[in-house]
Amino acid sequence: MNFSIVRYIISWLLKFEALFLLLPCLVGFLHSEIRATLAYLATALLCLLSGILLQIKPTRKELYAREGIVSVALSWIIMSIFGAIPYMLSGDIPNYVDALFETVSGFTTTGATILSDVEALSYASLFWRSFTIWLGGMGVFVLILAIHPLMGGSTMNLMRAESPGPSVSKLLPKVKDTAIILYKLYIGFTVFGIVLLCICGLPFFDSITIAFGTIGTGGFGIKNTSMADYSALVQNVVTLLMILSGINFAFYFCLLHRQIKRAFSIEEVRFYLIIIVAATITITLNISHMYPTFGETIQHAFFQVGSIITTTGFSAVDVEVWPQFSKTILLVLMFIGSCAGSTGGGIKVSRLLILLKSFRKELSTMIHPRLVKQIKIDGRNLSQEVLRTTNVFIAMYFIVLLFSMLLISVDNLSFTTNFTAVVAALNNIGTGYELIGPTENFSVYSAFSKFILMFDMLAGRLELFPMLIILVPSCWKRY
Amino acid sequence: MNFSIVRYIISWLLKFEALFLLLPCLVGFLHSEIRATLAYLATALLCLLSGILLQIKPTRKELYAREGIVSVALSWIIMSIFGAIPYMLSGDIPNYVDALFETVSGFTTTGATILSDVEALSYASLFWRSFTIWLGGMGVFVLILAIHPLMGGSTMNLMRAESPGPSVSKLLPKVKDTAIILYKLYIGFTVFGIVLLCICGLPFFDSITIAFGTIGTGGFGIKNTSMADYSALVQNVVTLLMILSGINFAFYFCLLHRQIKRAFSIEEVRFYLIIIVAATITITLNISHMYPTFGETIQHAFFQVGSIITTTGFSAVDVEVWPQFSKTILLVLMFIGSCAGSTGGGIKVSRLLILLKSFRKELSTMIHPRLVKQIKIDGRNLSQEVLRTTNVFIAMYFIVLLFSMLLISVDNLSFTTNFTAVVAALNNIGTGYELIGPTENFSVYSAFSKFILMFDMLAGRLELFPMLIILVPSCWKRY
Repeated sequence: MNFSIVRYIISWLLKFEALFLLLPCLVGFLHSEIRATLAYLATALLCLLSGILLQIKPTRKELYAREGIVSVALSWIIMSIFGAIPYMLSGDIPNYVDALFETVSGFTTTGATILSDVEALSYASLFWRSFTIWLGGMGVFVLILAIHPLMGGSTMNLMRAESPGPSVSKLLPKVKDTAIILYKLYIGFTVFGIVLLCICGLPFFDSITIAFGTIGTGGFGIKNTSMADYSALVQNVVTLLMILSGINFAFYFCLLHRQIKRAFSIEEVRFYLIIIVAATITITLNISHMYPTFGETIQHAFFQVGSIITTTGFSAVDVEVWPQFSKTILLVLMFIGSCAGSTGGGIKVSRLLILLKSFRKELSTMIHPRLVKQIKIDGRNLSQEVLRTTNVFIAMYFIVLLFSMLLISVDNLSFTTNFTAVVAALNNIGTGYELIGPTENFSVYSAFSKFILMFDMLAGRLELFPMLIILVPSCWKRY
Repeated sequence: MNFSIVRYIISWLLKFEALFLLLPCLVGFLHSEIRATLAYLATALLCLLSGILLQIKPTRKELYAREGIVSVALSWIIMSIFGAIPYMLSGDIPNYVDALFETVSGFTTTGATILSDVEALSYASLFWRSFTIWLGGMGVFVLILAIHPLMGGSTMNLMRAESPGPSVSKLLPKVKDTAIILYKLYIGFTVFGIVLLCICGLPFFDSITIAFGTIGTGGFGIKNTSMADYSALVQNVVTLLMILSGINFAFYFCLLHRQIKRAFSIEEVRFYLIIIVAATITITLNISHMYPTFGETIQHAFFQVGSIITTTGFSAVDVEVWPQFSKTILLVLMFIGSCAGSTGGGIKVSRLLILLKSFRKELSTMIHPRLVKQIKIDGRNLSQEVLRTTNVFIAMYFIVLLFSMLLISVDNLSFTTNFTAVVAALNNIGTGYELIGPTENFSVYSAFSKFILMFDMLAGRLELFPMLIILVPSCWKRY
């Protein structure tokens, strides 16, 4: 392990975090929240100071896969540790473990909360909560790399460790250019969302925070009722924005370059849209007796499907009262998740696609042993490498799920609560059933279980491997 | 598909089933149960007749993997369809779907029942229930191949499709010799179990049926309270027999040939025993406040761990009242299951071992990309083939699990019930939590859901692929 480069990268991360923290500081100042303003300012200074202290020119410049992975995993942890401080200093979340949970939940775009009264928070903290989601959505290093070259070359290993999906979508040959185009799209989307929500009649502050929560597919709301009190129009706009954010950004890149045919031929995007339509229709039929009009029924079904498959986790109705069939459809969507290369979490549609194709291949190899068949995605042969890591990913995913569920069961909560809590954390959704259902929150868990769930959120956002690798002792050997 | 050979194999299966059915017929006769005796006799004749009618010399002798797989999958279905008839004719289970469920549950060694009053059954049917488990435990084709050469050669494909585990353990070069040694061991064990239970003071009929249910790791009891009313001594003996039956039979084969060191160096067996000891200790500590003495606590913990990891599914206490932590440990054991090459179900300890080793390899490849490391089991390199199918198996397993859960959720039962019902069916355990807990049964489900669960039981017993392959249309193409 080349520790000097890891330290150097973390120093830059902290300086950027100092910059990020100035925004909620400004929000607090504008709302005359003295304590909150000072809390965010103090933390920003702390980050800056720590960043400067750690910024020693690296003795060696090697940034291999290992350093990339470790830097990203450590950075996300450190970023959360610092990011949680202002919640505590401002008095909004006095317990540090709870504050840390809320921060990890934000950065990982999970949106799981331990708060029962969100509306009691200061504006500064409400803004910071939503802003962490926005930062985590596209990735903090993607942002840093778009602005600062860091090490010059070999930063691909940083981006690879942070980007979701079975293979990183390198839109342009240079890492920096890819990072810039991704953030241009991301910012464009966010501005579009804010404007749209303002037009729908939402106050500016609500528009910004909800746009952050939606485009980042995190789902922190600023009301105790999540999205339930907003108008049908706002809910429909949010549904659309969520679904657009769950699409692979390569799709928009193609659209931007007027490769419309190519954009719509991306198998993952088509499969993703098919799943959404199928799930919405099925749920609409299943819950049709529960709401007065067809319009309202399909609106609720569409919102909930969009919220869950994109792993946003907003809720507009209490799905706990829906029939088990609809609830199980939503649970299956929790596992599937959004497209690779989007801001959403979950196993990802592309992995499901690869799996289903490899099953078909496996079965036909058994039927016709001499048949040699290649798995193709978007017309190109899938490499054995991607296929193997996809399979290992799925298997590892379920082992982590079961093991986490076992650990948090020490709190003696119900099976459904524990199972959906881990699913909600690992897939970065933020809401489950029973004690952590849409109208409940994660404060029912002990500090120990909260740490397990934080690990799961980070593991889910960074796609398992980085968080598991830092647990391997040999990873830390100096060379 | 060479249909003539499939038909020929099924004809032999039916003739053997006719033979098997004579045993419960005899039991009924000895207990003067006229209707039941006639029911089993009539079904035996029906099987014999159908067998003779289908027995046309095959036009072509090819028995490739495809024919082997299809023959085994179809045989298990047909065997269950015929095996369910006497339950209905005898009036013991008047509803045919229920009778079929009970038969599939028996042959697949699941032990899930739709009966609330087991004790109302005739002796003939009680015997048949337990006997189906015994037959399904080691495999019907393994038995047939031990007695009759069928096609002469290439019958390995039949055995491969029926034997549990990532790779078939060919103990001896010839299929027939392997089948004979397996059944010798199996019969030896069963006789040992019967004698031991008789010595413990159980009536002869109880000893036979419980030995069948134990050695076959199926778990059909003949009392409404499963094993709860038997003495502590009997429960301990059953625990031991279950655990011995969950061990890879290659272990006993080594012992038989005085290769004691080799036997105990089988990694799977060691890992299996370690899991049992660890789970028993943890549960004992967790439930220590619930029972008066330490002896009773450890006895219950040991029984339940043995019953679940071997996927037998007997119950001696109501685990529903245990703390969630212990219940979750048992749930994790449900997934793990017993050793490959045993009579138990589940994912199998060897697959877990392969997975964990491949995770370690995958992580260290990420840390040291240039390192070439081979995965070894029992000192031998694991082939890429076995590794790939193991990964595909696990991924497919979870997809089947989620999809089945989605389908049976139309009955609107609770999530925990549905989840554990599918887990109990797919892993051939037979008992779950909530509405299908130890004191409940599967009669709560609709006929539709029962069919889904029957599919899962067969898929679990035949290790997914055969049941999935017969769903692929191209498998049925004539060539």
